[in-house]
Amino acid sequence: MTQYNICTLPGDGIGPEIIAEGVKVLEAVGKKYDVRFTCTDALIGGAAIDACGNPLPDETLEAAKAADAVLLAAVGGPKWDTTDPNAPRPEAGLLGIRKGLGLYTNLRPVQIFDALAGASTLKPEVIDGVDLMIVRELTGGLYFGKRERFYDEEGAGTNGAKGQRAYDTLEYREYEIERIARQAFEAARKRRNKVTSVDKANVLETSRMWREIVHRIGEQEYPDVEIEDLLVDNTAMQLINRPADFDVVVTENMFGDILSDEAAQITGSLGMLASASLGDSTALYEPSHGSAPDIAGQGIANPLAQILSVEMMLRYSFNMNEAADDIRRAVTEVLDEGWRTGDLKDASTPADKVVGTVGMGDLVVSHL
Amino acid sequence: MTQYNICTLPGDGIGPEIIAEGVKVLEAVGKKYDVRFTCTDALIGGAAIDACGNPLPDETLEAAKAADAVLLAAVGGPKWDTTDPNAPRPEAGLLGIRKGLGLYTNLRPVQIFDALAGASTLKPEVIDGVDLMIVRELTGGLYFGKRERFYDEEGAGTNGAKGQRAYDTLEYREYEIERIARQAFEAARKRRNKVTSVDKANVLETSRMWREIVHRIGEQEYPDVEIEDLLVDNTAMQLINRPADFDVVVTENMFGDILSDEAAQITGSLGMLASASLGDSTALYEPSHGSAPDIAGQGIANPLAQILSVEMMLRYSFNMNEAADDIRRAVTEVLDEGWRTGDLKDASTPADKVVGTVGMGDLVVSHL
Ligand SMILES: CC(C)[C@H](C(=O)O)[C@@H](O)C(=O)O
Ligand SMILES: CC(C)[C@H](C(=O)O)[C@@H](O)C(=O)O
Repeated sequence: MTQYNICTLPGDGIGPEIIAEGVKVLEAVGKKYDVRFTCTDALIGGAAIDACGNPLPDETLEAAKAADAVLLAAVGGPKWDTTDPNAPRPEAGLLGIRKGLGLYTNLRPVQIFDALAGASTLKPEVIDGVDLMIVRELTGGLYFGKRERFYDEEGAGTNGAKGQRAYDTLEYREYEIERIARQAFEAARKRRNKVTSVDKANVLETSRMWREIVHRIGEQEYPDVEIEDLLVDNTAMQLINRPADFDVVVTENMFGDILSDEAAQITGSLGMLASASLGDSTALYEPSHGSAPDIAGQGIANPLAQILSVEMMLRYSFNMNEAADDIRRAVTEVLDEGWRTGDLKDASTPADKVVGTVGMGDLVVSHL
Repeated sequence: MTQYNICTLPGDGIGPEIIAEGVKVLEAVGKKYDVRFTCTDALIGGAAIDACGNPLPDETLEAAKAADAVLLAAVGGPKWDTTDPNAPRPEAGLLGIRKGLGLYTNLRPVQIFDALAGASTLKPEVIDGVDLMIVRELTGGLYFGKRERFYDEEGAGTNGAKGQRAYDTLEYREYEIERIARQAFEAARKRRNKVTSVDKANVLETSRMWREIVHRIGEQEYPDVEIEDLLVDNTAMQLINRPADFDVVVTENMFGDILSDEAAQITGSLGMLASASLGDSTALYEPSHGSAPDIAGQGIANPLAQILSVEMMLRYSFNMNEAADDIRRAVTEVLDEGWRTGDLKDASTPADKVVGTVGMGDLVVSHL
């Protein structure tokens, strides 16, 4: 019997509740396909700060490295929010594990479930056929460049007086752009053969280098894939204007953070979107949404994005495409039958079709 | 008779066509209110590169400084697109004049004209009541930080080989954040008393400093104005999810570039949105849209954003609020009567209601 070890990271807020449903679905699928998934929890984020003062304890990174895949729920919450540069922050756990595992590719597919199309704030004819994939560079740029805050005796305050100064650095090396470009072109080949490369080449030097390298890789290695350049400001517009026109969108870390959330919101159901972060070895899977501290512990959080992150894990880490298809089909059927968590319900949802976190997980398992 | 000198910068693409209509409306308003506006053209952008190799000739900056206000159309086009770091680029003219005039505040109001509400890709109930103002910091951040590209003998290429490296710097000083925060709070006092401050404080040091300073200014000097912090990725979502909830949104330069274009697209009529760039002396007014090289020279471009940038000029530079109201009323009436330029027409627009650039300018003048 095939065996896989999964490092599970519940994190903060609704994290523990939703990851339990992801694990439940993973185990059910394992039973069906005769694969044993052994899940072992480790600490990350605010939970890890509370336990040991460090958002990414060494043991967690070691456990993640040793595992066959990592399943993360979500980190962060107002409890740990601070502007003190020296205070530990939950997000540092997330950034640390991305860097520590070398997860330079973040894949964020954006698709619409027919049963939920009405949830979008965009008109039905605009979101009809939306099926895009954001490929975000995840271990470079402003997220990992040198940053500092200091006090200037002169010039940083009003009228030339003393005051504070701070900077962050957006830096890229050639190989970092080459490898993410290849990931985007490979993804496009499995889809509709089009890559939109997003930058701000009319202002940033990193963007001008980005554009040159993406074109070189595309022209030399993927002549069959179409490349389109789009400025980041224009992309923010076109995602609202004509979202169905996009296939693969590749961009640097910060632009990818902003645009992938914008693209997710287009569906109207953020609770349905998962992401995969891939590197050269262990990959990590997580929902695209956050830790929703406001509804934590109430048993009402939507576990479907977490469950769909299990779908991505089966596809990308274990090449279990049939099992992955099962999960997607099960989720689709549950929605088509009218079942909803609180975040997905609307005025037309009958009260007896509204379920909690565990109820939704059970429904998916029963449809596998 | 009051006299004002206006430096007009037609720039590239549709620029010369639309600025002519802006000037026409300005002169008509001047006649009505007994003010003489003397408009003098100067070169900027690609047109200036073609004429003298410099996107912002010294004479242009001098003329702008000496004027009572600057009216800009648009710069840029594929003719001058390049990734060569040493080539002159039209956008450098725009960035240069922003810096040269010290235009640190960019105001981008986003409102819906009732007659055009159907043009939005968002549902009518979502855009109902949208009336927000993006206050974008315009002379700092990644746009003006140190940037460089170089060749590393080691480590920047694949597998540790030699390769290219580039960086851009996101830098802010205390006084730059203080003054833009004050602009935002002042704007909010004239509106609905709420400021949403957008940053990425969970990652960037400049954002953590930004957040602290905005709160200090708000609490000390504007206790009557409500402050809300929103992460930039979340803001990109909420602008689509609940755009009518925003009043004033203040943010740094690059986030402001992305979010103001996203917010503009929510209206569905980019050809209707103007912006004001203010500093300590001469201010600059321009449409929010670009130079649309694809339709340049055909007499079909929509001049209304340019005309509405004249409205902003009258309000912010000359305190001529009645005249500004006249322009807004005239534009509203022309649209209510069903007149449309090509970009604004839809399936229900009768052919004889479609007008060109000059025709639209004339209609606005006739309604003043
Ligand atoms: C929590 C935060 C640091 C993170 C990011 O900005 O990358 C999140 O927004 C994401 O997109 O995964
Ligand atoms: C042309 C470009 C440099 C400019 C910017 O990014 O500021 C434009 O997009 C704008 O928003 O005015």
